[in-house]
Amino acid sequence: MIKTDILIIGSGPTGLFAVFEAGLLQLKCHLIDALPQPGGQCAEIYPKKPIYDIPGFPEVLAGKLVDNLMEQIAPFQPGFTLGERADTIEKLEDGTFIVTTNKGTKHHAPIVAIAGGLGSFEPRKPQLENLAQFEDKGVAYIIKEPEVYRDKKVVIAGGGDSALDWSIFLSDVASEVTLVHRRNEFRGALDSVEKVQQLKNEGKINLITPAEVKQLVGTDRLEKVIVRKTDNSEEIELEVDNFIPLFGLSPKLGPIADWGLEIEKNAIKVDNTLDYQTNIPGVYAIGDVNTYPGKLKLILCGFHEATLMCQSAYQRIYPDKKYVMKYTTVGGVTGFDGSKKEAPKAVVKSIE
Amino acid sequence: MIKTDILIIGSGPTGLFAVFEAGLLQLKCHLIDALPQPGGQCAEIYPKKPIYDIPGFPEVLAGKLVDNLMEQIAPFQPGFTLGERADTIEKLEDGTFIVTTNKGTKHHAPIVAIAGGLGSFEPRKPQLENLAQFEDKGVAYIIKEPEVYRDKKVVIAGGGDSALDWSIFLSDVASEVTLVHRRNEFRGALDSVEKVQQLKNEGKINLITPAEVKQLVGTDRLEKVIVRKTDNSEEIELEVDNFIPLFGLSPKLGPIADWGLEIEKNAIKVDNTLDYQTNIPGVYAIGDVNTYPGKLKLILCGFHEATLMCQSAYQRIYPDKKYVMKYTTVGGVTGFDGSKKEAPKAVVKSIE
Ligand SMILES: Cc1cc2nc3c(=O)[nH]c(=O)nc-3n(C[C@H](O)[C@H](O)[C@H](O)COP(=O)(O)OP(=O)(O)OC[C@H]3O[C@@H](n4cnc5c(N)ncnc54)[C@H](O)[C@@H]3O)c2cc1C
Ligand SMILES: Cc1cc2nc3c(=O)[nH]c(=O)nc-3n(C[C@H](O)[C@H](O)[C@H](O)COP(=O)(O)OP(=O)(O)OC[C@H]3O[C@@H](n4cnc5c(N)ncnc54)[C@H](O)[C@@H]3O)c2cc1C
Repeated sequence: MIKTDILIIGSGPTGLFAVFEAGLLQLKCHLIDALPQPGGQCAEIYPKKPIYDIPGFPEVLAGKLVDNLMEQIAPFQPGFTLGERADTIEKLEDGTFIVTTNKGTKHHAPIVAIAGGLGSFEPRKPQLENLAQFEDKGVAYIIKEPEVYRDKKVVIAGGGDSALDWSIFLSDVASEVTLVHRRNEFRGALDSVEKVQQLKNEGKINLITPAEVKQLVGTDRLEKVIVRKTDNSEEIELEVDNFIPLFGLSPKLGPIADWGLEIEKNAIKVDNTLDYQTNIPGVYAIGDVNTYPGKLKLILCGFHEATLMCQSAYQRIYPDKKYVMKYTTVGGVTGFDGSKKEAPKAVVKSIE
Repeated sequence: MIKTDILIIGSGPTGLFAVFEAGLLQLKCHLIDALPQPGGQCAEIYPKKPIYDIPGFPEVLAGKLVDNLMEQIAPFQPGFTLGERADTIEKLEDGTFIVTTNKGTKHHAPIVAIAGGLGSFEPRKPQLENLAQFEDKGVAYIIKEPEVYRDKKVVIAGGGDSALDWSIFLSDVASEVTLVHRRNEFRGALDSVEKVQQLKNEGKINLITPAEVKQLVGTDRLEKVIVRKTDNSEEIELEVDNFIPLFGLSPKLGPIADWGLEIEKNAIKVDNTLDYQTNIPGVYAIGDVNTYPGKLKLILCGFHEATLMCQSAYQRIYPDKKYVMKYTTVGGVTGFDGSKKEAPKAVVKSIE
């Protein structure tokens, strides 16, 4: 059982920054995310695109923002349960919560902060008869650990940035990379498309287009895929270790919708007059996942909501303590790792 | 008469960022500030100190944050009335406002956003009989334009960062700099104290401590100051062009307190359930200057409040238009200066 002060569901920018604000209050956080990496939409959908409306950044790449947030929260040593979806919540008699993931990992905390964005990112899967049978046995929809594919024969399907970028990346890792797409045209960053063209010319990526994977073959594990040209002109049988369909991820509020929270327009209603708490005391919702009058689904709003949420969580955990806020510039930042950042102090010194 | 869409009182971080959010909505802004430079507390009180809780910045100097915000809002060409205090507000029959400064500058706008922080920064003045008589005639409390002191004989009084830093700066500009302080000890950044010591040793700054300026002498303009050692051992008469007492600035809500706004604990009450509007429709209060249940006087909160305020202001100015928010990453940023920032577009390209 993982124990923490604030259990955060969703490690997008909102959930990440909550770790920092909680840390200033000496509260520890643990984050659960369905994705294999932190950063939410920024990391998964548009890591290489610039954002222009983060205050103080005339321009910042979404992936860089996530990196910065990870650096900012590092002193507060957050825990992560990645690649798992928070599925159930149970309120104990003492008012604390147990949240369990789809893989059975249990988390216990007095406060739950749902920072689930548009929902848990779930892969779009191809329509293939025996797909489920090979999941984790050669078939994966998200690449968690690229080293798994070292010296393997890999077939990637898809025509967007993920398919392009992972084909490029794995061409250096796998023994064989085949990219299958149902059109000749790919849609992505110009340099990614050009790089794949180059690797194809060099024989480092096999390209089969326009075509689709039509059948999976194997006994215990995946052994072969059958690829068919879309004009039915040809059927190609490939011996493979792995099939990775990268057809995009779509967010689903999913199981959280059944937690007894008030839901409106696919988002969780919160009390924006005070602390972004939901109808279940002790459960907050911050960032894109919540709704209230005038709500804007913007990163900078999630930062503010996370900050106010932490103050309220502190009061809930320590009802008898009075927290006196100190500016970070004045009080510095003392990490749980023993680190200390602080402004150089003024000196009092005579001039002779 | 200066005309704009949103008249912002206070050019601290909150007021500055409001310009950006307004700009995204194609609304123009003009800012009034009592200080000679934008940046509010960050620029005036602690420009060289690090802040640790700006989201996405593990550490940023307060002055650098202001520079970044100025760069971020530049495409939206804000107007500035600096070195003037907003004194009166008048509501016209059509619901728009005229705001007049202590120097008589008039501003006309349908929306007024008060981002006044802890109030208008007013200098602490020394107790000297005929001080007022020499104001702007040799006596100044804030240095707006250092070139005014070129080849002049200047006496600076004070023992903190401002007195130290301006003595250092003007030692290169003025023909003579004398620094008077009632103690031997100065309080400031170590390198500032050391630099003054060095300039004193080199004869580029005259130091008189512990001492105080006791009398101002002159007919039309300031001509002399009389400095007395605190132990009364000596009285020194100095021929000077300028006397600059730098005893710090203290913020005063000041005239805004009489605008008919609901005030609580020296701050303006706003409707935090929606848009940070005050009890006067069309007048908003954002950042440190406002109060509501759970209010935190933090920069990141001001950013959020400014953003929601702009949405509401837009609805007020264009009641019949429906604004559809576009992410900056998707829609880019189109400046009033014709500039355009946007993310590189994805290409659709076939791979042969
Ligand atoms: C193309 C694009 C451009 C954008 N441009 C801008 C912009 O310019 N400016 C701006 O402010 N915003 C922009 N946004 C929106 C911005 O990315 C979101 O506002 C922001 O990501 C919200 O952060 P969050 O932390 O609330 O949620 P998210 O980033 O959505 O993160 C939520 C995380 O929670 C996880 N999760 C959800 N439910 C569960 C569960 N049950 N179990 C486990 N994990 C779960 C998800 O997997 C996800 O990783 C843009 C979005 C897109 C898609
Ligand atoms: C030493 C110190 C350290 C700090 N550290 C942190 C930190 O680590 N993190 C953090 O988030 N915050 C910190 N703060 C607080 C932070 O600086 C404020 O929250 C922030 O400056 C508020 O911004 P603002 O734009 O609302 O107001 P301000 O920065 O106060 O700006 C308001 C401006 O309005 C002007 N004004 C007011 N009334 C009038 C008028 N009638 N006419 C003309 N001009 C007027 C003032 O002159 C001023 O320039 C710190 C503050 C101090 C003093």
